[in-house]
Amino acid sequence: MKRRDFLKAAGVGAVASTSLAAPALAQGVRQWRMVTAWPRNLPGPGVAAQMLADRITALSGGRIEVELFGAGEVVPGPGVFEAVAEGTAELYHAVPAYWGSKSKGFLLFGSQPLGLTAMEQHGWLLQGGGQELYDELYAGFGLKPFLCGNSGPQWFGWFRNEINSLDDLRGLKYRTTGLNSEVCSRLGMAVEAMGGPAMFQALQSGALDAGEFIGPWSDSALGLQQVAKNYYWPGVGEPSSAEECAINMSAYEELEDDLKAAVSYACESLYNPVLTEYNTKHALALRELVSEHGVQVKKVPDEIVVAMGNAMGEVLADLRGGGDELVTRIVESFLDYRQLMVEYMPYADSGQMIARGLDYKYQ
Amino acid sequence: MKRRDFLKAAGVGAVASTSLAAPALAQGVRQWRMVTAWPRNLPGPGVAAQMLADRITALSGGRIEVELFGAGEVVPGPGVFEAVAEGTAELYHAVPAYWGSKSKGFLLFGSQPLGLTAMEQHGWLLQGGGQELYDELYAGFGLKPFLCGNSGPQWFGWFRNEINSLDDLRGLKYRTTGLNSEVCSRLGMAVEAMGGPAMFQALQSGALDAGEFIGPWSDSALGLQQVAKNYYWPGVGEPSSAEECAINMSAYEELEDDLKAAVSYACESLYNPVLTEYNTKHALALRELVSEHGVQVKKVPDEIVVAMGNAMGEVLADLRGGGDELVTRIVESFLDYRQLMVEYMPYADSGQMIARGLDYKYQ
Repeated sequence: MKRRDFLKAAGVGAVASTSLAAPALAQGVRQWRMVTAWPRNLPGPGVAAQMLADRITALSGGRIEVELFGAGEVVPGPGVFEAVAEGTAELYHAVPAYWGSKSKGFLLFGSQPLGLTAMEQHGWLLQGGGQELYDELYAGFGLKPFLCGNSGPQWFGWFRNEINSLDDLRGLKYRTTGLNSEVCSRLGMAVEAMGGPAMFQALQSGALDAGEFIGPWSDSALGLQQVAKNYYWPGVGEPSSAEECAINMSAYEELEDDLKAAVSYACESLYNPVLTEYNTKHALALRELVSEHGVQVKKVPDEIVVAMGNAMGEVLADLRGGGDELVTRIVESFLDYRQLMVEYMPYADSGQMIARGLDYKYQ
Repeated sequence: MKRRDFLKAAGVGAVASTSLAAPALAQGVRQWRMVTAWPRNLPGPGVAAQMLADRITALSGGRIEVELFGAGEVVPGPGVFEAVAEGTAELYHAVPAYWGSKSKGFLLFGSQPLGLTAMEQHGWLLQGGGQELYDELYAGFGLKPFLCGNSGPQWFGWFRNEINSLDDLRGLKYRTTGLNSEVCSRLGMAVEAMGGPAMFQALQSGALDAGEFIGPWSDSALGLQQVAKNYYWPGVGEPSSAEECAINMSAYEELEDDLKAAVSYACESLYNPVLTEYNTKHALALRELVSEHGVQVKKVPDEIVVAMGNAMGEVLADLRGGGDELVTRIVESFLDYRQLMVEYMPYADSGQMIARGLDYKYQ
């Protein structure tokens, strides 16, 4: 709907749209409700959701006023997808990883075991045809989706006992989510999904042997260093984990082109502020975990990484051949882009970071 | 200046600002001229500059109309800094690496040998205090700067003959720029600065023995594969290379807050589209260079990387102790953030990419 049509629909005549432009514009302000999967201002995603609400408001020049509601204020956190699809709210802030029960295709837009880094994930969407598939998948549910952040590479998590081989994983009660659950199950782990605070208690009581949440900053906020000391990296089950915003399709479609741009660029502009906050705060938190809390930082044995890679290969083959034509195309697009990055990154970011790690006097 | 004051200054009375809101707004549209260091629509930075002009126009809701001028149309490419500082144009699109003759401090915002990756560079500015120092440095010249893209990790470049040791570099005539010039000079290379097309001719004639430009996409557009076959990685002299936009301080200061936000978020939103385009097109171009042009992809010997790291350590010590207090603070802030990333990335992106490179069946 064009603004002029919108004003007409609101009962404002053609004369009003010139001589009463100021009040007419006031009537034209859209009041958007953003529901979120997080408590209001939860460090990390809750804060990011508020930043996104504020950026959309600012970039719309005040023509969209976004009000944020935390999990449970309008709908429970897991209900935000349906709430926005049905128009109870205009947009949500959450993670694609939450919608795997609707279609496994969703999970690939969040995080893929042994898949894409945060930058590559944005690259797949922006350069590799990913956004079109993301759009197509969500359009089937009445939503227009955007990536708007990433919590970066995750850790393999907290283990009460050391893991030295694949055998050590069998039967281990381990908290994780998303496609990593499928992968770890295939390795014989007893995977359980639960929230962060529940994970703390379960590790403390021994109901869990191990679990991963995000990384040092978020994990230490939960106090996980108090209940397990072996902290394993890299979390190849989640080389990155995207955050998303999705907008009710009718609300999105009626926006003028410049407001569509405002929403899109607001999301795009937030990706690195969110990602770099995680990277920076994880790095600072890790120093403290090691120096003040006696945390033992340990590398996941290669044997386990290889087994996870093979298991993810099976998961992808199942998804690709599962009879859902759209999911097949999503898997193939992801695999193509990933292959390109696997080939190239050793010459680029990965090669640079390895070279940087050699021994010389820099400062 | 508030919009109301701006309208007053433009001779529009208080009555007009309500009853004649539409024409008053039309008068309030700012016509901004963007001068650039690139030919109009040059693949890579020229296209990015146009995207930035369009994004600022869109996100301002049309209240700023940015018109782009290629290098030489208003001022020559190297003159954009002064043109914007003096108000001949309102903003420019270029790279910080061009302004090293004004202060070596500028170079650290573009690219640091053995320094930050593109994502880390954005992180330094967003999370590590870098933006405040960047602001302070440019404010001294009447400019407000923003990063708005990055061409990512560069290659060490094209060599007519193999390089197998540090000795092979001595006396070698090599094209490079920025802080990498200082580093390579300390290694005994005969460094020369010249544009891309001149580099092609100089390599062809033997006036140069070697040279680096950017990476596979941009380098193959220059045809460098025709005049040298040994293509070396990683270009530790430039682990990333930022693009920037700077705005005349008076023009920026008179913007309403929401327009300041529009400019800032337009720049921020463009960082990943630019970076991921380079990464993706470099990766595709490398395939073609190897499969169709017989290019030999070779790794820079560790001995050379170590010598470059030591040389950069000397360069940084000189900068830090050179008597320019602001440059000292810039160096120290950079070193702090770099150290944090050097410590953390082996557990994060670097660790993930190395693990991903193990041998398993993924597809």
